[in-house]
Amino acid sequence: MQLSEAQRRYVETARVGRLATADGDGRPHAVPICYTLVDEQIYTPLDEKPQSVEATELRRVQNIRENPRVTLVVDHYTEQWDNLGWVQLRGTADILSANEPTHDEPVSALRAKYDQYASHELEHRPLIRIELGSARSWGRLDRPAD
Amino acid sequence: MQLSEAQRRYVETARVGRLATADGDGRPHAVPICYTLVDEQIYTPLDEKPQSVEATELRRVQNIRENPRVTLVVDHYTEQWDNLGWVQLRGTADILSANEPTHDEPVSALRAKYDQYASHELEHRPLIRIELGSARSWGRLDRPAD
Repeated sequence: MQLSEAQRRYVETARVGRLATADGDGRPHAVPICYTLVDEQIYTPLDEKPQSVEATELRRVQNIRENPRVTLVVDHYTEQWDNLGWVQLRGTADILSANEPTHDEPVSALRAKYDQYASHELEHRPLIRIELGSARSWGRLDRPAD
Repeated sequence: MQLSEAQRRYVETARVGRLATADGDGRPHAVPICYTLVDEQIYTPLDEKPQSVEATELRRVQNIRENPRVTLVVDHYTEQWDNLGWVQLRGTADILSANEPTHDEPVSALRAKYDQYASHELEHRPLIRIELGSARSWGRLDRPAD
């Protein structure tokens, strides 16, 4: 799969995306995620588990186990609708456990992108890994200032 | 279905949400949408059809016809992660054609919320209507200033 340069830059610099999964019966689910793009794969950590998000967290993981097909949409909103834009990435997800050697590089990339992860124990948390399949985009990917 | 007052205010005032659908085979899809909340139902217009979005547009409608279950996630991102928050709304979608009498009220509500729709011929465009089933939320719904 090939991202265009504009798509890649847009996805790399965005701070948040929304991940759509679906359970084995096809019921869709969506959550905002922080992520990094490394070697044509998207990585996002499973959250630490305050009680309040546990059910959502479990649903996301269970959906991926039942049905690994996912879509990540990265977009920006502006009141200047001529300046809207988005990138949709379809792919196949799995769970990368913390003890796998390939876990280190995406953890470093997440920390490089988000200072906030300095205080999170990402080393010990599984990641969702998304092997990208296809990309589609629309509108302005250069996020013009309004 | 009952939204709490905080959830309702959060959903009503947000300018954009992300709608997850899935096709008959359970492949999820997600797009940013503008929407309005009227009488426990979410309404979003089908886009006018510039060539570039037509395939996405068709997929969204086809997914809803194959599988009416959808999830709308409304969230805000901030670098102060203690201030993050979201509302997830699950529901059942259908397509409301422009000649139905119940089409008028959501069109007025969309115009009241978004000045941008003044120049769009919403009267002649179908709406996606989502009957809300359940709501879940997390984090700060008062969008504190950073």
